[in-house]
Amino acid sequence: MAVGMFESFITGHWFNAEAKALWSDTATLQAWLDVEAALARAQAELGVIPAEAAPVIAAHARAELFDLPQLAEAIAFAQHPLVPVLHRFEQLCGEPAAGYIHWGATTQNIFDTASALQMQRTHALLAGHLGAAIDALAALALAHQATPMAGRTHGQHALPMTLGFKLAGWVDELGRSRQRLAERLAASFPASMGGAIGTFAATGPLGPAVQARLAEQLGLQPAALPLRASFDRAGDYLAALGLLAGTAQKIAQDLVFLQRTEIGEVAEAFHLGKVGSSTMAQKRNPSTALLLVSLARMLRTRTQAAQDTMVRMDEGDSSATNVADTLLPEVAIIATSLAETLARLARGLVVDEEAMARNLGLTQGLIASEAVMMRLTQRMGRHEAHRLLYAAAQRAQSEGLPFVEAIRALPPFEGRALPADLLQALDAAAYVGESAALTVQTVARVAPGVLSRK
Amino acid sequence: MAVGMFESFITGHWFNAEAKALWSDTATLQAWLDVEAALARAQAELGVIPAEAAPVIAAHARAELFDLPQLAEAIAFAQHPLVPVLHRFEQLCGEPAAGYIHWGATTQNIFDTASALQMQRTHALLAGHLGAAIDALAALALAHQATPMAGRTHGQHALPMTLGFKLAGWVDELGRSRQRLAERLAASFPASMGGAIGTFAATGPLGPAVQARLAEQLGLQPAALPLRASFDRAGDYLAALGLLAGTAQKIAQDLVFLQRTEIGEVAEAFHLGKVGSSTMAQKRNPSTALLLVSLARMLRTRTQAAQDTMVRMDEGDSSATNVADTLLPEVAIIATSLAETLARLARGLVVDEEAMARNLGLTQGLIASEAVMMRLTQRMGRHEAHRLLYAAAQRAQSEGLPFVEAIRALPPFEGRALPADLLQALDAAAYVGESAALTVQTVARVAPGVLSRK
Amino acid sequence: MAVGMFESFITGHWFNAEAKALWSDTATLQAWLDVEAALARAQAELGVIPAEAAPVIAAHARAELFDLPQLAEAIAFAQHPLVPVLHRFEQLCGEPAAGYIHWGATTQNIFDTASALQMQRTHALLAGHLGAAIDALAALALAHQATPMAGRTHGQHALPMTLGFKLAGWVDELGRSRQRLAERLAASFPASMGGAIGTFAATGPLGPAVQARLAEQLGLQPAALPLRASFDRAGDYLAALGLLAGTAQKIAQDLVFLQRTEIGEVAEAFHLGKVGSSTMAQKRNPSTALLLVSLARMLRTRTQAAQDTMVRMDEGDSSATNVADTLLPEVAIIATSLAETLARLARGLVVDEEAMARNLGLTQGLIASEAVMMRLTQRMGRHEAHRLLYAAAQRAQSEGLPFVEAIRALPPFEGRALPADLLQALDAAAYVGESAALTVQTVARVAPGVLSRK
Amino acid sequence: MAVGMFESFITGHWFNAEAKALWSDTATLQAWLDVEAALARAQAELGVIPAEAAPVIAAHARAELFDLPQLAEAIAFAQHPLVPVLHRFEQLCGEPAAGYIHWGATTQNIFDTASALQMQRTHALLAGHLGAAIDALAALALAHQATPMAGRTHGQHALPMTLGFKLAGWVDELGRSRQRLAERLAASFPASMGGAIGTFAATGPLGPAVQARLAEQLGLQPAALPLRASFDRAGDYLAALGLLAGTAQKIAQDLVFLQRTEIGEVAEAFHLGKVGSSTMAQKRNPSTALLLVSLARMLRTRTQAAQDTMVRMDEGDSSATNVADTLLPEVAIIATSLAETLARLARGLVVDEEAMARNLGLTQGLIASEAVMMRLTQRMGRHEAHRLLYAAAQRAQSEGLPFVEAIRALPPFEGRALPADLLQALDAAAYVGESAALTVQTVARVAPGVLSRK
Repeated sequence: MAVGMFESFITGHWFNAEAKALWSDTATLQAWLDVEAALARAQAELGVIPAEAAPVIAAHARAELFDLPQLAEAIAFAQHPLVPVLHRFEQLCGEPAAGYIHWGATTQNIFDTASALQMQRTHALLAGHLGAAIDALAALALAHQATPMAGRTHGQHALPMTLGFKLAGWVDELGRSRQRLAERLAASFPASMGGAIGTFAATGPLGPAVQARLAEQLGLQPAALPLRASFDRAGDYLAALGLLAGTAQKIAQDLVFLQRTEIGEVAEAFHLGKVGSSTMAQKRNPSTALLLVSLARMLRTRTQAAQDTMVRMDEGDSSATNVADTLLPEVAIIATSLAETLARLARGLVVDEEAMARNLGLTQGLIASEAVMMRLTQRMGRHEAHRLLYAAAQRAQSEGLPFVEAIRALPPFEGRALPADLLQALDAAAYVGESAALTVQTVARVAPGVLSRK
Repeated sequence: MAVGMFESFITGHWFNAEAKALWSDTATLQAWLDVEAALARAQAELGVIPAEAAPVIAAHARAELFDLPQLAEAIAFAQHPLVPVLHRFEQLCGEPAAGYIHWGATTQNIFDTASALQMQRTHALLAGHLGAAIDALAALALAHQATPMAGRTHGQHALPMTLGFKLAGWVDELGRSRQRLAERLAASFPASMGGAIGTFAATGPLGPAVQARLAEQLGLQPAALPLRASFDRAGDYLAALGLLAGTAQKIAQDLVFLQRTEIGEVAEAFHLGKVGSSTMAQKRNPSTALLLVSLARMLRTRTQAAQDTMVRMDEGDSSATNVADTLLPEVAIIATSLAETLARLARGLVVDEEAMARNLGLTQGLIASEAVMMRLTQRMGRHEAHRLLYAAAQRAQSEGLPFVEAIRALPPFEGRALPADLLQALDAAAYVGESAALTVQTVARVAPGVLSRK
Repeated sequence: MAVGMFESFITGHWFNAEAKALWSDTATLQAWLDVEAALARAQAELGVIPAEAAPVIAAHARAELFDLPQLAEAIAFAQHPLVPVLHRFEQLCGEPAAGYIHWGATTQNIFDTASALQMQRTHALLAGHLGAAIDALAALALAHQATPMAGRTHGQHALPMTLGFKLAGWVDELGRSRQRLAERLAASFPASMGGAIGTFAATGPLGPAVQARLAEQLGLQPAALPLRASFDRAGDYLAALGLLAGTAQKIAQDLVFLQRTEIGEVAEAFHLGKVGSSTMAQKRNPSTALLLVSLARMLRTRTQAAQDTMVRMDEGDSSATNVADTLLPEVAIIATSLAETLARLARGLVVDEEAMARNLGLTQGLIASEAVMMRLTQRMGRHEAHRLLYAAAQRAQSEGLPFVEAIRALPPFEGRALPADLLQALDAAAYVGESAALTVQTVARVAPGVLSRK
Repeated sequence: MAVGMFESFITGHWFNAEAKALWSDTATLQAWLDVEAALARAQAELGVIPAEAAPVIAAHARAELFDLPQLAEAIAFAQHPLVPVLHRFEQLCGEPAAGYIHWGATTQNIFDTASALQMQRTHALLAGHLGAAIDALAALALAHQATPMAGRTHGQHALPMTLGFKLAGWVDELGRSRQRLAERLAASFPASMGGAIGTFAATGPLGPAVQARLAEQLGLQPAALPLRASFDRAGDYLAALGLLAGTAQKIAQDLVFLQRTEIGEVAEAFHLGKVGSSTMAQKRNPSTALLLVSLARMLRTRTQAAQDTMVRMDEGDSSATNVADTLLPEVAIIATSLAETLARLARGLVVDEEAMARNLGLTQGLIASEAVMMRLTQRMGRHEAHRLLYAAAQRAQSEGLPFVEAIRALPPFEGRALPADLLQALDAAAYVGESAALTVQTVARVAPGVLSRK
C-alpha cells in the first residue's frame, strides 16, 4: 500500500529513482551499519576494543541480514529507533564481539554520520545532473549568443538583448549554486562520534582519535566539536540548496512564459503521446517546466523548515531532530529530482527565432527608445531628452503609431529628415549591447568544456 | 523498498494507520472512481448521458480492477495522471458505456472532488481523536481544579494558579480548534464539476444541476463557482489545522518542561521496556510530547506551504496544484496523527502534586508578591507600594531571605508585628484567584459530557 | 530621521495613511489609556475602586498629556514598556486616584485589549476598501459578462470564456474573504482583563464582571478565559488576512500578465507623468499590480510569522509576544494598504476587447477543440474521438494549419463536407458555456448593490 | 508621528542606533548619490562623459542639498523612486554637467550598488558586536572549563559536562557564522552597472570597464554579469544571517531555561531599577535573552522572505524587488541589533556554580549511569549490561532510591561490596569526558585572542 509522494502511482515518476534508492529503508539501515563497522575498526586499530571484535562486527554489518518489518515493530514498541537494531546486530555477531558494538557511541552519532554518508552520495548524483543542465544551457547560449529577442522588465518590453545573454544569466546563477554546494559539502556533513552529548565521555581521551580514524575510513571530515545540538553546518548546505531551488524556479517560470500561446519563443520538448488534457486535444503544456516549479517549491519549503530545526534545547532535542531527520531524505530526493528535471528540460528546449523577431517588432520601435534617448541626451541634456521622448513614446502607444513617426513629429525634427544616427538607433535588433561578449565570457567561466567542445 | 516517512521502518509508527489507508494509492484511485461513478449517475438521471451507461460505469468503478504498477508506468509515459486511468476504465466498461465516462469533466474536477471526499473522511477520524484528547484533558482539569501550582511567565514564577486552570486553557483552545474545523469542513471541500475552466462548457446549461446532483450523492456541497484556480476554501480549513498545530505544540512544549528533571510536576505515561537511550539506562524521555512537537512542526510547514499555492496563474496552474496535491495527503495524515498523539499523551499524564507544592514554595513567598502589593496599594497608593515591595523582593532574592523577612524589615513594618492581612496574602496556595471556577466553566462549555459523567 | 518602510521617502506612499495613523505611537498610547480609563470606570461601577477615582483617571487618559520622547527613554531604562507610562499617569492623576489606576491588571491585559481596539478600527477601514474593490470588479464583470476571451491553463490556451466570468471568480474569492474577516473579527480580538496569568487573582470574584463591563464599554467581547498565552483567536483573523493576500496576489499576477506587451487585454490606469523608467521613455509598467503583489507577499510573510508566535511558554512568554506585538501593526497597515491598492487597481482597469478577440483567434480554432471533441464522442466514443482529435490538433500545431483544415484531413471526413455541428463547434467565441449566467449569479450573490444599481 | 517598530517609543530601544542611522532616509539618499558620483568619475576617467562633468556632479552629491519631504511627494506622484531625485540633482548641477548624471545607468543599478555599500557598512558594525559576543562567551568558557553541570537531552538529565564545554559549543557555532559572513560579503554585494537589463547597451563596450572602475572607487567587487534578476548572491549572505539567527535563538532559549526559577544556573545581568512586571515586584525576567529570541525570530522571517524574492520574472520584476528592497534595511538593522544584544547578554552572564552542583546531584547518581554501563559492558557484554542497569535505574526512579542502592541490589552485586571502579564511575562530577580540553581547543581556534589575554 504505497503512501507518500515518492512512491505514489501518480507522482512517483517525478522523483529520481537513484536518489530514492539512496534513502530507502534498506540504504538507511546499511548506512547505519557502515558507520557501526567503521567505528569498530577505528576502535580496534586504536586499541579501544579487542582487535578480534572488529572483523566480526564488520562482517555482519549487512542490511540484508536484518528483517525490516520485524525491526519496524520492535522500534514502535521500544519507541527507540536504534536499540532494536543493535539488539539484532548483537545476536548476529554473538559474544564476545557483540559486546563491542556501538562502543561509547550514542544513537544520534550513528544517525548523523550515516546521513552525512548519504548526503555525500546524494551530492554526487545531484552534481552530475546539475552539471548536465549547465552544459546544455551553456551550449544553447553559445549557439544563440547573437539571436535577438526582447528583454522584459515588470512584464513589459524594456530593451533588446540576445537569447544567449538571457541563458548566460541562468548559467551564471547555476554555476554559483554548483560551486556553493561543492565547497560546503564536506564541512556541512562531518562524522560525529562524541557520545551522548559530545564530550567523548564514554571513550575518554582516545575519543577524538577514534572519530578522526572513523571519518577517514568513511571519507568524511571529523567534527571539531561533535555536538548533536549544532545543525548550522548542515543548515548551510541546505541553504545553498534553497538558493538552487530559487534559481530553478526562476528559470522554469520564465520558460513557462516563453512558451505561452501568445509568446512562443522557446518551447520544451514534446513527443507524440504526451497528453496535456483529458478533453482538450490541442494542449501542449510546458509540463516539465511546471513540474520544475513544483519541485522548487517543495524543496524550498523543506530546506527552510529543516533549517528552522537548528534551534534545539540543551545538548539534544528530538522535537527538532525528529523533524530534521524526516526532512533530510525529502530534501535529498527532491533536490536531485529538481536537478535531473532541469537537465531534461534544458536538453529539450526548442527555440523559435522567428517568434522572437516578431515579438521584438511588436512595439514598432519603442523597445529601442533608450538608444534614441542616449543620442538625444548628447544633444540636449538628459532632462529635455527624456521629456521629448516620453511625449513621443506615450503618444505612439496611445495612437498605435510607429515610434519613428512620433519622433518625426517632435518639434526639433518636424518637417526635416531625421538624423542618420537616430534612425540607426531605432534598429532594435542592433541594440543588444555586450550580449554576445558577455555570453561567451560566462560560458568560458562557468562551463569551459562547452566552449572548447564547440 | 519503502521510501518516505510514512512507511519508513523508523518513523512509520508515528503516523496514524487509518489516515494512511485513507490516502493510499488504492484509496485515492477508488475516490476518483467514486467521483466518476457519481458523475455518470447524476448525468444519467438528468438525461445528459444514456440511462444504461451509468450502471455499467458504476459497476466497474472499483480500484481492485486496476493494476496500479501498470498505471504508474503509463502515467509516467503520458505525463498525465488521469488519461491512462480513463483508458483502462473504458476497456473495463466496453462500448457504448465507455463513451460516457468522464463526460464533460476535466481531470482537476475529478481530483478536487475526490480529495474533498478524502478530506471528509479524514476529518471524521481526526475529530474523533481530537475529541478524545479534549475529554481526557478536561477530566484531568476537573480532577485538579484546586491543585495549586506555580504560574510562570517569561520563564519565571509569576503567580500561583491551579493545574486545572492551566489545563482548562488547553481545553479551551482545543475546543475552538474543533469548532473551526467542523464549521469549515463542508464549505472548504466542495464538489467541483465545471469542466476545464469552470464554465460548464462541455455540459451546457445542465452542468450546474449535474454538479448539484453529484454533490448530493457524495455528501458534499456543490461549488458555487467551480474554479480550479480558487483554493481559498481549502486554504481556510488548512489554516485552521495550522492553528490546531500551534495549540498542540504549545501544550507539548509545556509538558516537556513540566517533566524536566528539575520540575517533575507532570510526566507522560511510561512503560517498562520503553527505551530512552542506547547508553543512558536512566532515561525517561517525554518522547510522546517531543513527537507531538515534531508533528506540529511538520504540519505547520505543510499547511502554510499548501496555502501559498493558492496563488495560481489564470484558470489553472499545475505548478501550484502539483504542490497542493502532494501536500494535502501529507497534511491529512500528519494532522490525524497529531490528534491521535495528543489524545494518547493526554490520557497518560501522571501528576505529581508534591512536586507542584515543592516548586510553589521555592521562592519562599515571592510568588505571592502581587497579593501583598494589592493590600499595600490600598494603604499607600500603587506607586509607593510597588517601590517598597520591589525593594523587599529584590533584597529577598539577592540575599536568599524568605520574602516575609524582607517585608518585616521594610520601614513601615520594622519593629512591629506584620498586619494579619499581609501575612495571609503571603499564603501562595490560596492566591489562585478564580482558577477553580474558571476550570469548571470551561469544562462545562467545551466538554459538557465530561462534567456530567463525573 | 525616518527609518522603516512606512515612513521612508521612497516607499511611504505605498501605505494607507489612515491605517498608519491608527498605529502611530500616539494612537497606541491613546488606546492603552482608553483601556485604563474603561477599566477604572468598570471597577468604579462595580465598587472595586472608589467611585471618585474613575472620572479623575478618565480625564487624564489623554495621550497629549504625555511626552513621548521622554517615555521612550524611561522605557529603555526600565526595560519595561508600561511602568513608565503608569508612573507619569499617576503623577497626572494625583493621589488618591493614582492609587487606583491599572487596578489588578497586568501589562499584557492592557496591550491585548488596546490592540483589539486598534484592530477593530483597522477592520472598518480595510472593509471599506475591500468593499470598493469588490464593487468595482463586480461592475466590470457585469459589463463584460459576454466579452469573449481565451481561458488559459498551465500557460496555454485552454477554452474560451468571458472576461466577466474571470472577474466573477475574483469577486467570489474576495467576497469570501470579506465574509471571513467580518465573521471572525469580534471573537478574534476580545477584551482580556484577567491579571498576570488570567486567574483574576488581583480582582477576585468580581474580576469577570469587571472584564465584561469594560468590554461592553469598548465595544468588544469579553474573553471567556483571559489567557495571554492563547493567541489562536487572533491567529484565526490573521489567517483570514493571509487568504486575502493570496487572492490579491493571484489577481495582481493575472493582471500583470494580461497587460504584458504581447497580451494587452487589460491594462491598469495610466496618467501622463507616471514614469516607468529613468531611461526607457516608453515604459507603462503595471506598477499598481506589481505593488499589489509586493504588498501581498509582505502581508503573508507577516501573518504567518505572527501565527507562529502562538507557541508560547507557560502562562506568558515575551519571546513570542514581543514578535506578535511588532507584527500586528505591520499586518494591520499592510492589509489596509493592500485593500486600498486593490480598490484603486480595480477602479482603473481598461479593457481592450479587440486584443481579447485577436488572442482568442491566435490558435486558429484549436482553443475550441473540446467542443469538437464532445460532438465526436457522441459519434465514436471518447477514446477514439480523443485519438483522432489529438492527431489533428498536434498536426495543426506542428504545421501551423488552421484546426479546421487538420480536421477535414482526418479519415472520417476526408473528401467530404464537414458536418454542420462540427463547423459550429469550432466557433470559439460561442463556446463560453455558462460564463454569462455564472457572472450574473456571482455578482447578485456577492455584490447585490452593483446589480441593482445597473 | 512615529510608525513602525524601529522608531516606536515602545520598541525603538531594541534596535541598534548606528544601524538605524545607516539605513535612514538620509543615509539611503546619500548612498545613491555616492554611487552616482562614483559613476560620473569612472565615466570621466574613461572618456565616456566630459572630464569637467564629474567634479560638478560629485560636488552636488550631498543629501543635505535635497528636501526629503518634497522628494517623497514627487515620488508618490511619479510613482517612480529615482526620477524625482535625478530631476533635483540636475537642477543642482546645472547644464552641461546635468546632462551626464546617471549616464547609461538604470534605477536598479543605483539601488543595488547603493544597498551593497550600506550592507558593507552594516557588516562592519555587525561583525564588531558579533566578535564581542564571541570573546565574552569564550572568556567565560575558559573560566568555567572545569565547572561541572548537568548535560541534558530531550529535557532530561543525560550526562555530566562542564559549563565551559557548553559555552564552547556556542562559541564554535558563532565562529562559523562570523566566518561565513566575512567570506561571503564581497561576492554577495557587488557593484552592478549594466544598464536596464545588464547588457551595457547604453554604455557600449566601455561599460564593463566603467563598472570595474566604479566598483574599485566604492570598495566593491564588480558583478561579472550585472543582472538585476539575479539575487542569489545577496541571498547567500542573507542565508548566513538566518543561520546566525538560529544560533542566537538556540543560545537565548537555553539561557532562558538556565535562569528558570527552578534551575538558576546562569542568570543575565540585573540592575536595580529594571522592572519585570507592573504588579509582580519580585520578577527578574531574562528579558535580554527573551528579546534576543524575538530578534532572532524577526530576522529569520525576513531573511527567508527576502530569499524568496529571488524568483523574478524575466530581466526585472518590481513585484519581487519591491519586497527585497524593503526587507534589506530591516534585515540589516535587526541583524546588527541581534549581534549587539547577544554581546550585551554574553557580557552580563552570572554563573551560579552551587546551583549547577545541586542540580547535578538531583538524580542521586543516575546521570552517571553511562559510566557504570561502560564498566559493566566490559564484564558482561552491552546487552546484559543494559538490561541490568535499565532495571536498576528505572527502579531507582520509581522508588526514589539513590542509584548506588539500586545497583547494590542487582543480582551480581547483592550481598557483596560494590567493586571500586563502579563506585568511582558513579562520581558524576568526574564523568565530564574531554570537556575541558575541547573547551580550550575551541577557544584557541575561534577566539585565540581570549586565550592569550588570559
